[in-house]
Amino acid sequence: MTLIVQKYGGTSVGTIERIQAVANRVVQSQKQNHQIVVVVSAMSGETDRLLSLAKSLSRMPPPRELDVLLSTGEQVTIALLSMALEEKGYTAVSYTGAQVHIRTDNVHNKARIVDIDSARVQQQLRQGKIVVVAGFQGIDEDGNITTLGRGGSDTTAVAMAAALNADECHIYTDVDGVYTADPRIVQSAKRLRVITYEEMLEMASLGSKVLQIRAVEFARKYNVDLRVLSSFETGSGTLITDEDENMEAALISGIAHNRDEAKLTIVGVPDMPGIASQILGPIADANIEVDMIVQNVGLDNTTDFTFTVNRGDYEKALAILQKTAQSIDAKNVAGDNKIVKISVVGVGMRSHAGIASTMFSALADEGINIQMISTSEIKISVVVAEKYLELGLRTLHTAFALDNGAVTDLIN
Amino acid sequence: MTLIVQKYGGTSVGTIERIQAVANRVVQSQKQNHQIVVVVSAMSGETDRLLSLAKSLSRMPPPRELDVLLSTGEQVTIALLSMALEEKGYTAVSYTGAQVHIRTDNVHNKARIVDIDSARVQQQLRQGKIVVVAGFQGIDEDGNITTLGRGGSDTTAVAMAAALNADECHIYTDVDGVYTADPRIVQSAKRLRVITYEEMLEMASLGSKVLQIRAVEFARKYNVDLRVLSSFETGSGTLITDEDENMEAALISGIAHNRDEAKLTIVGVPDMPGIASQILGPIADANIEVDMIVQNVGLDNTTDFTFTVNRGDYEKALAILQKTAQSIDAKNVAGDNKIVKISVVGVGMRSHAGIASTMFSALADEGINIQMISTSEIKISVVVAEKYLELGLRTLHTAFALDNGAVTDLIN
Repeated sequence: MTLIVQKYGGTSVGTIERIQAVANRVVQSQKQNHQIVVVVSAMSGETDRLLSLAKSLSRMPPPRELDVLLSTGEQVTIALLSMALEEKGYTAVSYTGAQVHIRTDNVHNKARIVDIDSARVQQQLRQGKIVVVAGFQGIDEDGNITTLGRGGSDTTAVAMAAALNADECHIYTDVDGVYTADPRIVQSAKRLRVITYEEMLEMASLGSKVLQIRAVEFARKYNVDLRVLSSFETGSGTLITDEDENMEAALISGIAHNRDEAKLTIVGVPDMPGIASQILGPIADANIEVDMIVQNVGLDNTTDFTFTVNRGDYEKALAILQKTAQSIDAKNVAGDNKIVKISVVGVGMRSHAGIASTMFSALADEGINIQMISTSEIKISVVVAEKYLELGLRTLHTAFALDNGAVTDLIN
Repeated sequence: MTLIVQKYGGTSVGTIERIQAVANRVVQSQKQNHQIVVVVSAMSGETDRLLSLAKSLSRMPPPRELDVLLSTGEQVTIALLSMALEEKGYTAVSYTGAQVHIRTDNVHNKARIVDIDSARVQQQLRQGKIVVVAGFQGIDEDGNITTLGRGGSDTTAVAMAAALNADECHIYTDVDGVYTADPRIVQSAKRLRVITYEEMLEMASLGSKVLQIRAVEFARKYNVDLRVLSSFETGSGTLITDEDENMEAALISGIAHNRDEAKLTIVGVPDMPGIASQILGPIADANIEVDMIVQNVGLDNTTDFTFTVNRGDYEKALAILQKTAQSIDAKNVAGDNKIVKISVVGVGMRSHAGIASTMFSALADEGINIQMISTSEIKISVVVAEKYLELGLRTLHTAFALDNGAVTDLIN
């Protein structure tokens, strides 16, 4: 007998009919000799409905009370799903975050899980029950209700899987797995059979919004095998797991992209120690997150400093940078919010030279100018003009032989 | 400084605007140097919305999960009311039944409160906070969520008041107090300034649906001063409290009625020991509640046995009784569901003779035939044909001098 934690998001439980469909899936799994813990989100639309009630009372609702309010969303779902399971003749029992002791810190609206007391759940599983747990919520050590922030249900599922030492944690979504590239852009994109945590983290942070980054980090930390599956279709999805030997076949596992960034450059900065923090300090103080950073030293003892931010923060960052430019006596400030970041990701590149040159020459052959480059151990990212998004993705997908199943070991 | 527990029902918190109005009232009370604990119900309509979700999944939803579902209703209200209070610049803190340790037995959907741990609430009050508690819900000793049954929020409020040793418990409703008779029928009905628990219990059980009987019983048991007030108007309402000396002035405090009953008679029953239980046993087995019971022994060694049930159970009771009549060899079965019970209620009647004769002769003078009579220490009830409801009420209201303020001590 194996223990599986399954997580269904808001869309998957968005109507009574869909809750019944989820119940069917859960029952199927239990019949395959699995012990099942189900983690669910609020029905789609419910969190927004509750938020709008709060907003009609207060422009800035007190965070503690917002958590009390929002946590009712998942509580409704656990009760309804348990009813649907019981109606099918199965024994189910629902638990709120508080009831199953999902202990978090006390940072309301974006709490972090500290500990889970799994004894109660284990006892119910031993009795043959299906355990249904509310995602997204917990309690702090004073018994206040907390929430983990949007999408936190993924994290709940992984944390439950870790606490229960589950065999796998299945995340049901509206896609059927992780692809070598966005299939809406690259028709020849293939679903990956398996991918490492690190690769998935790079993919996720680069805009492949299949999974919350936090959940993947959590899974890596506690070595939980994660599987992304479709709520609406059958299939084995994509397994996200630790690196092992037979993965080395693939140089790269996918091409990710993120068009939600904007680029800012401050030109002709006096090149002296501490200048980077003088530039980025005010940006950080304004709670703007910085992604890529590139600095080149020029010949005239000045330097050009370029970084990217979320596109939504572009105007704000530009205004701050213009002030900074005056105070540090820089020559000029420039910006561009019509860019896209394209990245090749793969644990294989650690042991293989030549990935970068393949990437750069493939793009050059198509006349695509590279504006920024940034690398990590398992990723090379470039920033190019947004108009090259589709061409760039397809070019790289072909250049790394992802079209024709060269990485068959990883593609299902 | 006094401590007041205030309870607002679903209609009082039915919209965002009404929640804001409740917040205003709470703030006004706190300004009058009161410590305030507020108990609230689900927004009107919310419980029905949740129930219909459950019913669309299961004809008989599992009681435990129904409680998990329904308890979200009050949880939404406590969060919203706390937000409204904070928005006005006051410090509020919300608690679910579980958080404030409202311990109940484990009878889901109609749990009874066993214990409340008031330490946490007291600590918050000392810090000057307004404490907002979810009505209607608690937890059993295994941490399962329970609910107290519809209207249970009144009971929560009284239990909180008892646990906190509050000065008064205020129940806000859509009427402004308890009247000497139903003001929709008797124009000259007056609002009572004060009434005893026992009188209120008789009034409530007789169909004056201002308060839940359970809440009044709880208040009597723990000697909590209860006050019924209007959510929408100002006024001092009606105080429900222990009997004291200056109440003796009033013979009776009100005329109650209940038209939700039906009468059944089994005629010509052999008069022998145990016959009553043979008749009522099958009725009780069918979960039909019996109210009045009257038995007369006739001359021919047979007896006529009459009782009343809820009008909704009339057909079912009649069918059962017909079976019983055959098995015990009774002559006949008769029934009437066009009846009304009218009662005069007052602690004063304990020490005064003549109440019954005043009542019966006043009714006789108007040609109203009495079908059944039943008495308790502080109440005399008669069953008459339903068509006499209005005439009977007005006649008795006048006969006991309630019209002209003879009981001025009790009428505001």
